[in-house]
Amino acid sequence: MSDIDPDEIPPGALSVLPVAGIPEIRQGDDLAGILADVSPVVAYDVLVVTQKVVSKAEGQVIPIDTDDPRGHKAIVEDESVRILRRRGELIISQTRHGFVCANAGVDLSNIDAGHAALLPVDSDRSARRIRDVIRARRGIEIGVVISDTFGRPWRRGVTDVAIGSAGIGPILDLKGTNDALGRELQVTEVAVIDEIAGAADLVMGKATGIAAAIVRGVPQAWFRNGSVREEIVRAPQDDLFR
Amino acid sequence: MSDIDPDEIPPGALSVLPVAGIPEIRQGDDLAGILADVSPVVAYDVLVVTQKVVSKAEGQVIPIDTDDPRGHKAIVEDESVRILRRRGELIISQTRHGFVCANAGVDLSNIDAGHAALLPVDSDRSARRIRDVIRARRGIEIGVVISDTFGRPWRRGVTDVAIGSAGIGPILDLKGTNDALGRELQVTEVAVIDEIAGAADLVMGKATGIAAAIVRGVPQAWFRNGSVREEIVRAPQDDLFR
Repeated sequence: MSDIDPDEIPPGALSVLPVAGIPEIRQGDDLAGILADVSPVVAYDVLVVTQKVVSKAEGQVIPIDTDDPRGHKAIVEDESVRILRRRGELIISQTRHGFVCANAGVDLSNIDAGHAALLPVDSDRSARRIRDVIRARRGIEIGVVISDTFGRPWRRGVTDVAIGSAGIGPILDLKGTNDALGRELQVTEVAVIDEIAGAADLVMGKATGIAAAIVRGVPQAWFRNGSVREEIVRAPQDDLFR
Repeated sequence: MSDIDPDEIPPGALSVLPVAGIPEIRQGDDLAGILADVSPVVAYDVLVVTQKVVSKAEGQVIPIDTDDPRGHKAIVEDESVRILRRRGELIISQTRHGFVCANAGVDLSNIDAGHAALLPVDSDRSARRIRDVIRARRGIEIGVVISDTFGRPWRRGVTDVAIGSAGIGPILDLKGTNDALGRELQVTEVAVIDEIAGAADLVMGKATGIAAAIVRGVPQAWFRNGSVREEIVRAPQDDLFR
């Protein structure tokens, strides 16, 4: 064993910090202002905010129609532009944003009984609003990511991915970059925004009530304009699996 | 703005630390020993190691047969048990491990010209070897993840996911857990191992030659036996998209 020091923070390290102190959010709450108040962000931090609190603040929570025999499924069908697969209670569909996910992103957890939370109407816009308020109040550049929990075909378990972003590039394009041996890289478009969303989930969990996290140490070169909808959503004609 | 301190590290925070000092790896190199020497791991760290150096150390690098008109594709077909889709040069196939990915995980970057790197034969075993060596030398419990870069249907860009693990549970099962409002969670199986692999990629990049990273601060309760192949790979009969 060499003389390595486990307490030394090497250059290029990241930290992922849960944001405490976000109260229960209700429709009409000034979520951006609350986040600006409670998030200890510094310049070039990425603030990751879970979809649930964004949907609540934006009023994207609706009562489940108990007269509709389809129940919760009625909402899922209404929120879908295309159903890809059905199995039992599970529907995999494409939302109007272009996301392909279970139950069109409609969710019954962490909201009042008898209600369902829909995805934000435009989650890139939701991210921009939060970014703009924090930038105005603090005078710093930050990135904002709205995250949600999606399943994957072929792999069990869910992970958090980005459904909206502002100030941070969703895709890192390494085109023209060489590998460590000087050969051009084959894989050039890295969805860093989804890796950031997943990293944030590791400190938020699903049961803790922690609705935001800060990812600190992301290279400054990654901060730019860009939208999840424009860069991450794959057009159906480019997709091999629908 | 309240009296928040951006330099305070809150409870539950993670750090992601690139591991420097890994030399160019060749077949037969004692990768586990090298990692034990250069990685400043402490108890309950997760050491994420990229597939490329594991494949090299294990001799999973083969010359491309220049007499075979299929070229690189010959290797991809040999490494596939089932071809799911083809488009141009791209093949999406299922490997014998059960992974569904582009080109059966066969990769031409960061290896000598005229050669291709295959996936490890058993990447859970590769992770266990590294974990066992570090545990023996340091006397600490750690988790080890072997990561690789996969694309996704429906979403553009690649992310790093786990193809092998030891000492850390691939899936965090929240079954029976309640949400912050006391209702049972709908989504209960979180693929934390893939979120850890993606977080590590944020500090490794594809062009830097950094082949490992430490994720520090993962809850101790997540450390247990478990394998990516057994927990993450979805059986074809459970899958809606092949």
